[in-house]
Order: sequence, then C-alpha cells, then structure tokens
Amino acid sequence: MTALAHLRATLDMLVVDWLGVDEDRDIVQGLLDLAEGIAADHFLPHYKLTDAQEPRLEADGVHVHPAIAPALRYYADAGLFAAGFAPDLGGMGLSALLGSAGFALFAAANIATAAYPMLTAANARLIATFGSAEQIDVFARPQIAGAWFGTMCLSEPQAGSSLADIRTRATPDGEDALGARYRLAGNKMWISGGDQDVSDNIVHLVLAKIPGPDGALPEGTAGISLFIVPKRLPDGTRNDVVVAGLNHKMGYRGIPNCLLNLGEEDGAVGWRVGAPGQGLRQMFQMMNEARIGVATGAAALAMRGYALSLDYARDRTQGREVGVRGGPPAAIIAHADVRHMLLQQKVYAEGALALCLYCAALVDAEEEALLGLLTPVAKTWASEFGLAANDLAIQIHGGYGYTRDFDVEQLWRDNRLNPIHEGTTGIQAIDLIGRKLLRSDDDAYAMLRARIDATVAAAQDDVDQCVPARAVADAWTRIDATLARLRDHPRAAHDNATAFLRAFGHATVGWLWLDIARASAGDDAAAAGRRHAARYFAAHELPRVAAWLAPVDARDALAAEMPDHGF
Amino acid sequence: MTALAHLRATLDMLVVDWLGVDEDRDIVQGLLDLAEGIAADHFLPHYKLTDAQEPRLEADGVHVHPAIAPALRYYADAGLFAAGFAPDLGGMGLSALLGSAGFALFAAANIATAAYPMLTAANARLIATFGSAEQIDVFARPQIAGAWFGTMCLSEPQAGSSLADIRTRATPDGEDALGARYRLAGNKMWISGGDQDVSDNIVHLVLAKIPGPDGALPEGTAGISLFIVPKRLPDGTRNDVVVAGLNHKMGYRGIPNCLLNLGEEDGAVGWRVGAPGQGLRQMFQMMNEARIGVATGAAALAMRGYALSLDYARDRTQGREVGVRGGPPAAIIAHADVRHMLLQQKVYAEGALALCLYCAALVDAEEEALLGLLTPVAKTWASEFGLAANDLAIQIHGGYGYTRDFDVEQLWRDNRLNPIHEGTTGIQAIDLIGRKLLRSDDDAYAMLRARIDATVAAAQDDVDQCVPARAVADAWTRIDATLARLRDHPRAAHDNATAFLRAFGHATVGWLWLDIARASAGDDAAAAGRRHAARYFAAHELPRVAAWLAPVDARDALAAEMPDHGF
Repeated sequence: MTALAHLRATLDMLVVDWLGVDEDRDIVQGLLDLAEGIAADHFLPHYKLTDAQEPRLEADGVHVHPAIAPALRYYADAGLFAAGFAPDLGGMGLSALLGSAGFALFAAANIATAAYPMLTAANARLIATFGSAEQIDVFARPQIAGAWFGTMCLSEPQAGSSLADIRTRATPDGEDALGARYRLAGNKMWISGGDQDVSDNIVHLVLAKIPGPDGALPEGTAGISLFIVPKRLPDGTRNDVVVAGLNHKMGYRGIPNCLLNLGEEDGAVGWRVGAPGQGLRQMFQMMNEARIGVATGAAALAMRGYALSLDYARDRTQGREVGVRGGPPAAIIAHADVRHMLLQQKVYAEGALALCLYCAALVDAEEEALLGLLTPVAKTWASEFGLAANDLAIQIHGGYGYTRDFDVEQLWRDNRLNPIHEGTTGIQAIDLIGRKLLRSDDDAYAMLRARIDATVAAAQDDVDQCVPARAVADAWTRIDATLARLRDHPRAAHDNATAFLRAFGHATVGWLWLDIARASAGDDAAAAGRRHAARYFAAHELPRVAAWLAPVDARDALAAEMPDHGF
Repeated sequence: MTALAHLRATLDMLVVDWLGVDEDRDIVQGLLDLAEGIAADHFLPHYKLTDAQEPRLEADGVHVHPAIAPALRYYADAGLFAAGFAPDLGGMGLSALLGSAGFALFAAANIATAAYPMLTAANARLIATFGSAEQIDVFARPQIAGAWFGTMCLSEPQAGSSLADIRTRATPDGEDALGARYRLAGNKMWISGGDQDVSDNIVHLVLAKIPGPDGALPEGTAGISLFIVPKRLPDGTRNDVVVAGLNHKMGYRGIPNCLLNLGEEDGAVGWRVGAPGQGLRQMFQMMNEARIGVATGAAALAMRGYALSLDYARDRTQGREVGVRGGPPAAIIAHADVRHMLLQQKVYAEGALALCLYCAALVDAEEEALLGLLTPVAKTWASEFGLAANDLAIQIHGGYGYTRDFDVEQLWRDNRLNPIHEGTTGIQAIDLIGRKLLRSDDDAYAMLRARIDATVAAAQDDVDQCVPARAVADAWTRIDATLARLRDHPRAAHDNATAFLRAFGHATVGWLWLDIARASAGDDAAAAGRRHAARYFAAHELPRVAAWLAPVDARDALAAEMPDHGF
C-alpha cells in the first residue's frame, strides 16, 4: 500500500466512522479519490526535486521549481481552491472537515506545494468575511478560482511574535470603489509565497498602522489595521512591493519565504479591510485557520513517515527474533524496539490527525469557544509529536534513513518548521493557559470536560478499554487540580505554561484515542489495531502527564530565578 | 564569549574541578588552549562549507572539501593524533579524560572533520592492543603520527546491526612478516572515511569470516575474525579495495560515507589480527571507544547550540516582560519559555558532556565493568538529549533558526546521525538490560549504586541540594525495584528495553548533576548556575523516570501483541 493510500484509509475511518462527516458517502469518496489522485500524480513526484532546487530570486522576481505550477493548475482545475467556499462565491460548499481531510492528502504528498492553496484559501476566506462586496469580487474570487494566490504579511524583521511592535505605516490616500485607499511603507518578513511565478497575481493581506494626526504610529496592537495589497493593481500595473531577499530554509523549500519591501518608491497601494484598528482581530481568523492548517500538515507528514517506515520494517530483514538462533534473518517488524517505534508513530501521527480533524468538525459545528481552546493544543501537539514521529521513521530506517535516497529525512526537515511558524510553541502555551483558560469566562473548558467524561463513561464498561479509560480520567483529574491551583497564581501559570500545554495536549489526545477506540468496534485488523493503539497511548504516553505537571503544580520558579550569568 | 570559549570554560570546570584530572594544571591548560585554538582557527571556518559541498566520488577515488586536509595537518603537526598513546609509540601519554576534553572542542567546531582523527586513533589503539609488533610498526605508528587514517569496516548491505550475518570472506594466502595473510572479498557498507584524498594511506580494520574446509563460512559471530586491509600495501601498490558508492547524508557531510567493494579482482590483501574467531571481541574495543566518541561528539554539538542560542537570546529583543506595557522590547532571555529552553539545553548539553567525561575517567581508572555498564547509557543519552538540545537551540532562534544563515539547523542535522551509528538506541537498550544487567554476574551495578548513594548522602545535608538528592534517590529506588521485577522475566525486560534505558539514563544524569553541584561551591555565577541546573534537572526531568518505568514495571506486552496488520 502506498503511503497516500495508507493515509486515505485512515482518513476514511476518522472522517466517516468516527466524526460522521455531513456529506454523503459518494461526495466524501469522490472528493478523497480526487485529492488522492492529484496528490499522487502531481504533488508527490516533485517532492524531492523542489527540495534540491529551491526558489531563486532574479531580477524579475522569484522563480520556483517548474513542476509546481502545473501541479497547482490541476488542483485549481479540479475546483479545489473553491472546495470550502459557499456556492454564491463560486465554491463547492464542502464542510471544513472534508476540506481538511483532502488537504491532509496534499500535505502528505508535498507539504510545500500544498501550502500555496492553504494560504490562498485562508486569505480569500478572510476577505469574504470582513471585506466589502467589491473587495470580495476583485480579490477573493480570483483566489477561490485558483488564478491568484494569497499571503499573510504580519511579521517584520524586528517584530516576529510581537505584533504590537510592527512599524509598517499606512498613509491615507483617498477612497475609491474598493474602499479607503492607503499608501503603505515597511518591511515584511517570513512571507511564505511572498513572490512566485505560478499565479497571475498575489494578494497580500498586510497588517500596518495608520499614523495619528501627529504623524506617530499608535502603540500596541489596538492600532493595527488590515490592508489588501496586491502585487499587481486591478489595472494590471505593478504595485510598489519588492522582494528584498529569500530565506534559505532547512526544509519546506518548495515555497519561497520572502522579505518584502513595501513602499520603496511611491508607497504600496492598499485598501483597508473593515474599520481601522480591527486588523489583529480580523487577522486572527486567518491565523487560527492557518494554525489548524499547519497542524494538519504536520500530522500529514507524520502519517507519511509512519507508512514509509512501516513498509520498510516489513521488507527489511535483520537479525533474528528473540530466542531464535540461525535460519534466515527476520523482518525487523519482528523486533520489539521497532514495534514500539511503529506504535509510537501510530499514536502520534493518527492522534495528531484526529485532533486536527476534530477541530475542523468544530468549525463546521460553529463551536467557536471549544475550537479556540483546542487551537493552540492542536497546533503544538501535531507539530511536536508529528516531528517526533518523523524522527522515529528515520530511526527505523537506520543509516538508510539518514540518506537522501529515502524520503524520511526530508519529512523530518520539512516538519521542523511547524513548531515555529504561525506562532511558536511558547506563544501557543501562553495563549492556552492565559487567554483561553485563566482569563476566559466562557465555558469552553467545562464543555471539553463534559465530552471527555462522556467518552470515559462509555468506555468504562468495555473490558478492552477500561484501563485506558481510567488513565484518561486520571490525567484530566490531575489537570483539573492543576488549574484549580493555578487560578490565583497567573504568574506561576505563565512561568510553566509550556509544560502545562504539553500535559494538556497529551491528555487531549489520550481522550481522542479512547473515543476512536469506541468507534472501532469489529474484528478487522485495522479496528483491532486502533483499539490496541488506544491502550498503548494510555500505558506508554499518559504517564508523561504527571511528569509534566509535577513542576507546574509545585509552581516551580527555577527558570525565572536562574541568574542570567549562571547559564 | 564564543561558543568554543563557552565550552572550554565548562570543560575546565568538569575536568579539573569535578573529575580531578591526573595531569597538572599547566598540561591541562596547555592542551586545551592548543585544542581550542586549532578548533577555532582551522576546524570551525569550514563548518558550513563542507556541508554545502559534500564529498564527490570521481574516477580516482573520493575527493573531500579542500579545507579539510590543511585543518588535519595542523591537528597532526600539533601531535594530537598521538595525544592518547604511550611515549614508546610516539605518543604524548595523555589521559583519556584530557583527550576526550580536547576532542569535544574539535567536535563542537566541526564534527565531521573531527571524526577522521577520532576513528584513526581508535583504529591505531586496536592494532596497538591486539596486533603484532610488526603490525603496530607498519600500521599503527603512521596513524599515531597522523600521516595515515583509519576506518572500521563492520556492516554490510545485508548486515547492519546483525554482524553474525556478514559474508565477507577471507581466504588464507600464506604468511609474511606482517603475519597470516588473507585475500578478502565482500562489500562493506557505511564506512566513514572509507576513501578520501587527505591522508597518505588508509588502514581499514575489517571483520570477515574464514571459510571452513568445506568452503562454507562459519555461522554466527564466533566465526568472525579481524583483518588489517590497507588501501595501499606497504610497497605502495594499490590494494583491491574500491569505493563503489557514497551515501548522500542529511548532515555530518564533511566525512564521506562509503560502500567499499573488497576483492573485485584478485582479492584484497589483509593480515589477520590475533587469533581466528576473535574478531568481534577485538572490535568491541574500537566500537566501545567509538561509542563514547560518538556520545562526546553529540554532547559537543549540544554545547555549541546551547552557547549560540544563549548568545542569541541575550541579543534578540522581542515583546515585553510579563506585566510590562510599552517601552523598548526586552531581550528574549527575559521570557519564561526561553529561559526554560536554555535551562533544558544546559542540563542536556552539560549533563551529556559530564557523562562522557565520566566514562573517559573510568578508562583512565581501568574500571572496565562500570565503563561497560555506562557505555550504552552514555551513547544513547548524549545522542538523544544532545539532539533534543539542538532542537531547542533552533526553537530559540525562531524562524531564523530554520534558515541556513545560522548554524543551529546544521548542528541538528549533524547530530541526528548520532542515535544511529555505532549501534542504534535499540541496540544499546538490549545491551544494557540484557548483557550488562540481567545476564552479568559482575558487580558493576552495585558499584554504580554505591557511588550514587555516596553522592546522595553527601548532598542530603545541603539545604540547596536536599530536594534534588531525594529525587535522585527516589529515581534509583524505582530502578532497583524495576530490576528486581525484571530479573525473572528476561522477555519482558527485552520487550521494554528502550524505555528502561531512557529511565536509567535520566537517573544517571540526575546523579551526575547532583555530583557536579557538590563540586560547584562558591558564589560565582557559573557555580550558582550549576547548582540551579541540578535542581532544575530534578524538578523538571527526573519525574520522567517514573513515566518511562510505568509500562516496564507492568511488563507491558502491547508492542509484542500488536497484530501485524493492525499497524
């Protein structure tokens, strides 16, 4: 079975059997057939090529590997840019869940090529949500058709995670049919797809600040507004947006990462989206969608590495089974350590995928509070344990895995970006404990706990799952207790936020595994494997929850108290 | 402070203050000055060059980057190939401990270039131990002088970790002044430095089997003998050893990794070392030395990444300290998450280095049983947590760390080889629990426990260290209990050997940190930082011991019982 077919089978189970996707079976299978076919035939073949031949900056702009444009043409012609949009926008109106499943297949085949449409769809969705009718017609529709691509321009060289410090300046420049017009000047860093020679135009969504009457930029994030800054203006002329340089990445190389200079000459023309000062709030829609997209990509890379190393472990012979002397060598899948590495990959990769798909289902159900709570968890857990899965895929391949003759080393390099972009793990951690738990008055945590309790209650009477059910319940009892301890100690919570996030993530995935086991009745091997995996996660992974929480519960201040010169 | 100066300061403390190296202070400082100077001036400058321009195989053999030869010429001219050998072999007679400290500086500067002398010294030491006087004169002395380099040829394409399955055949071919002569034919895989254009000659130490009277190769490892197979014969003619290909690695690229064909024509001439059938036993000397060398290299990479990310964290500004609004951005070392990542790197990198140096001191003290027990622990722990440290160094750099403009991504790629070569983690794990603990009747474990108890007893009355002392004692009480449970269940021990090794490794490093804290009295910031780090390891890392042991103690069989078609 190919790695994509293996992923496809997992998606079928999770989307249909576990989450009960809205679309009927024909639509689901049709979409996944289409995605698997285009991914296998047009995305996968240039996976290594775009790594070896990375984008080049020339006088006329950025050139990417020539295999990328035809692949994305197939993708556009199949209507896939439009998959998640409403019919009145030219879309197919598919659920977020089905769209995420399709995306996973493309990301598994070629994460960098899949990043162009992921960013483009998120960009178009933001404009469709907050833009005027004219802005939607001019800037969102061509992206939904896949003719233009989109970017998100947040960071600047001096302001990576700290958007309050951005300095890009938007000076009013009148008004036209597209709304309030501005001239922008500034530098935007880390812009994926910031230039390329694939799409007819590029729609940059840019965060910038409008100066006050004294000419000074407003302080903090409240002064940030959002602007549409196209590479080419609607009349076809070039806007004042220049690629000043490319970042040479360790992996994820098929999509260029650019430093953009806006307004080196007359100022880049941009149209404000919505009201002034709403930029960060609006951009959070795109960022949160991108966070789940990053997580889904990380899970997809993990799934591919898992399938590849499973195949390798079945084919490669080495040594003998325990207690056997002489005779032909055994396939390495017979060895205990290899079986552990496969099971770890299974629980990490499928667990990460399940968490991402669960979040997509929350989008469809419009359960925004729960989605907000789980977004930093999904972003981090899928990124970190997806990467850990890829590390294990290399290890199963032994020395071969360290060579470029196999794909697993590239999967690992590609996946290393995911704990960094769209908000580092550290950023997600303070979002979870600070904004989403301790400072929030909504009942997202109570909702989550109620669902977990329901899963645990249903599993308790299952002789196969009662042990993992107890382990999941115990993990969440610990988290309840930790939260109760931290509620009056926000500084201590902040100081150990990352350890808390890791514990929360493991407990969340433990719950999902239990829930997947519940949906995996029957005698077939795949169902038995999933029930087994749920037990494995509980026995081998959930004990880590207590280990992470120990210093959190102690309100440990060692990191804060370390003398700077003691490092 | 440069990364090498930072490492040097740590080595001074560990080697002199903590381990009490044999040599007097002038010799120690002289050697480390020499090593730091050559490493900084001649190894570091080509670190990125040899990554970008990897070795090429041409008609006349393998060509490596031209910066490597002059660097190793400086190394040889300084007498460093000879550092660890006795004066009657032309050596400096330095202790293994001081030699390891020097090696760490070279490995931190350029792990691939440092690998040539590491392998060469281990090769020469094997010949010096088991070879005849003539073999030593002809093959060891030129390596001790740094004129010839050495390799170890164990694996074959079909036999990586399973040496019993090697098929290289050694046919008797008379006897001469160099001993019993053979003609060898076979394929050797993963040979680091298997060919290059740096040294005048290459001494391959080759494992092969001598056919029986029926022409068949003996089964198992007992039939393995050891042979010296030079690239050029003593009369200067080429031996029948051909490079059939290079492996294109993800990192560690400065040293070529070769597939060697022996005996494509008349058979490669080789001289047997020692008695027939002793090959594996003899090779274990070199392999164990190489395992500690790999571990020391992994620790050195971790130390460099730690120093680089510490510098970055002090320079890079982003965001504000908790509770501060407005004003200039803070250096990111002020942020809790960054401080955790720095402390984690400190405890991983310095802990790994300490464990490797402790093993080197055991070589000097000729405590072979304890060294044998700790070798798989050091190999694995330094490799895995050194890699984890490099991952954190990338994370501190954010997006910049993912680019090739900084060194940390290469450190991470380079370090990924270390859990694979010289015996994977899985191999080390069954060595520890099987050979070194459950099947051994020596008292190495009792000796280790006595030392740990002594450290704990000394720390218990120290108000600063009594908490970590209790945590270390608790971790080892758990390991004692696990071992007692496993003693009659060797299959269960084997099935969860890797988790046990991880627990054992963390408990070992926890003990060493406690011991380092004991040796770090005084008010200076570095000493205070080490005492702080010991507490950090106990609070944040030692809780993982219980998490790893939980399934081991339960004699968990989930990996063994997973149905093959359930993956």
